[in-house]
Amino acid sequence: MTRTRHGGFLKYERTMSETIPTFSVTRKIRFGHTDPAGIVYYPHYFDMFNGVVEDFFDDCVGASFQHMRATWKVVTPLRHIDADFIAPCRIGDQLKLAMTLVALGNTSLKLTIDGSVDGAPRLQARLAVVFISAETGKAVAPPPQIAARLRELAKTTQPSS
Amino acid sequence: MTRTRHGGFLKYERTMSETIPTFSVTRKIRFGHTDPAGIVYYPHYFDMFNGVVEDFFDDCVGASFQHMRATWKVVTPLRHIDADFIAPCRIGDQLKLAMTLVALGNTSLKLTIDGSVDGAPRLQARLAVVFISAETGKAVAPPPQIAARLRELAKTTQPSS
Amino acid sequence: MTRTRHGGFLKYERTMSETIPTFSVTRKIRFGHTDPAGIVYYPHYFDMFNGVVEDFFDDCVGASFQHMRATWKVVTPLRHIDADFIAPCRIGDQLKLAMTLVALGNTSLKLTIDGSVDGAPRLQARLAVVFISAETGKAVAPPPQIAARLRELAKTTQPSS
Amino acid sequence: MTRTRHGGFLKYERTMSETIPTFSVTRKIRFGHTDPAGIVYYPHYFDMFNGVVEDFFDDCVGASFQHMRATWKVVTPLRHIDADFIAPCRIGDQLKLAMTLVALGNTSLKLTIDGSVDGAPRLQARLAVVFISAETGKAVAPPPQIAARLRELAKTTQPSS
Repeated sequence: MTRTRHGGFLKYERTMSETIPTFSVTRKIRFGHTDPAGIVYYPHYFDMFNGVVEDFFDDCVGASFQHMRATWKVVTPLRHIDADFIAPCRIGDQLKLAMTLVALGNTSLKLTIDGSVDGAPRLQARLAVVFISAETGKAVAPPPQIAARLRELAKTTQPSS
Repeated sequence: MTRTRHGGFLKYERTMSETIPTFSVTRKIRFGHTDPAGIVYYPHYFDMFNGVVEDFFDDCVGASFQHMRATWKVVTPLRHIDADFIAPCRIGDQLKLAMTLVALGNTSLKLTIDGSVDGAPRLQARLAVVFISAETGKAVAPPPQIAARLRELAKTTQPSS
Repeated sequence: MTRTRHGGFLKYERTMSETIPTFSVTRKIRFGHTDPAGIVYYPHYFDMFNGVVEDFFDDCVGASFQHMRATWKVVTPLRHIDADFIAPCRIGDQLKLAMTLVALGNTSLKLTIDGSVDGAPRLQARLAVVFISAETGKAVAPPPQIAARLRELAKTTQPSS
Repeated sequence: MTRTRHGGFLKYERTMSETIPTFSVTRKIRFGHTDPAGIVYYPHYFDMFNGVVEDFFDDCVGASFQHMRATWKVVTPLRHIDADFIAPCRIGDQLKLAMTLVALGNTSLKLTIDGSVDGAPRLQARLAVVFISAETGKAVAPPPQIAARLRELAKTTQPSS
């Protein structure tokens, strides 16, 4: 239900010879996102990125950030991000943010997010998220059922050959 | 289309003997909205309020903020707001924000926004927005077609007797 | 030290025949605060208001929000706010925010914040903050030493006759 | 004056055998920056980064963003950023953000920002900012006096041998 409300869905796109599952959400660029130059003030993009990952965990992984923290004392801070801003977004743009789970480590995962408006690229970002124990502050493996679900989601992201 | 995507719609609810048109949008409360106490950091509500008014202009009035500024050099800053915070919102809450146009002056309008989660009230806000010439900085009447559309939308908000 | 860094200080101004202690901080209006019309996007003001109250607790009351929550399980959410926006602020403005503690109840306090640039008024806000038990969610009296310090700070805000 | 208010200053630190001029500002980590895990919600860091670059232009380059846009129709969007988050920041931390101008191109500049609290590293970011004509949307050389001042500031950042 949240899924339909936010336009999030698991979409399988065929790119070259690979099957890449991508989770996409679309965000309306609002007045409050934009700066005196009439374009998005870039820190807002990072808030949107966090929202995409949050929706991915809510809608696809099946465990929200707060559920993981409350149940398993596991938090998921960002370790690294890099982003290229290709073209600006303006008020009223419908920014599609397509997320791909590109790698899954024992205590971390890597994601890419591609932003586009009507098919034209606007930005690309690469994120590394770590699983951290809220009690020790150390990196930990995610709970087994989360790890299994992430492996399942990541498996299909690998090139078929 | 934006309308369905954001869940915005003109909904006529019968309250007592009056017909009150209310424009509603629902916002998912996200990790990024919340504070160390696990509840929404209240400045985010004001960003949401601005978004509701923006969606109302986009979806119901039929003229976006940027269109009004570009075409008629009219901007719509907030003159007054007051808000009561009745109960906190937490991550994952679906906050329904129901807006009513309660009064329409020559150069201003008054709105209320009621926030609720699953029917339980969380907040109430009253806003006064003014139409300002981007060139002179003075209050101005909105363009005739906007004024006409707002009168139409406001008319039905008055008690029938 | 924090006090000097943020420009916060307890300043006694004589207004009419009363002595009104006011806690002031000055905030530089930045690019990131402003919207396509070149003026402050108003939700940022509420973030600044929260920062003023935070600095008041840190610098004058002597107990930070996090200290109160960690030590006494007391949190201080906003119950009510109203604000009038008199004139816009622009990039580069040095916005002085002058806070006065106007009333102290058993489980709440009332504050006003006056915003000005070079002495010209820009906004006025009135806030009601409540003390809430983080454990029960109910209103509670603040810890005795906090209550005593607040009474001391509030006493001088009353008209002398 | 702005410089002292914000703690910004041109500080010459000797690192190895080189002279590296670094522009530093210190930001108080506030309640409003932090998330349910009690640590800074990372999009706020990017807002702080923009503020550091803004202060650098205001205080060191001698031309504010708005001045450049108003006078020369030149805007300075971000083209690339990458950031490593080494350790979290918590409420009350005094985060020192030390900026270095590491490269100056014809139409762009590269900066690094190192964040630390009491000397312990918290984050590192690398930014590429471009000069863009607000009229054509194309990359342009900055105005001569800005270019000259930037060259002067950048010169000393190069290793002496």
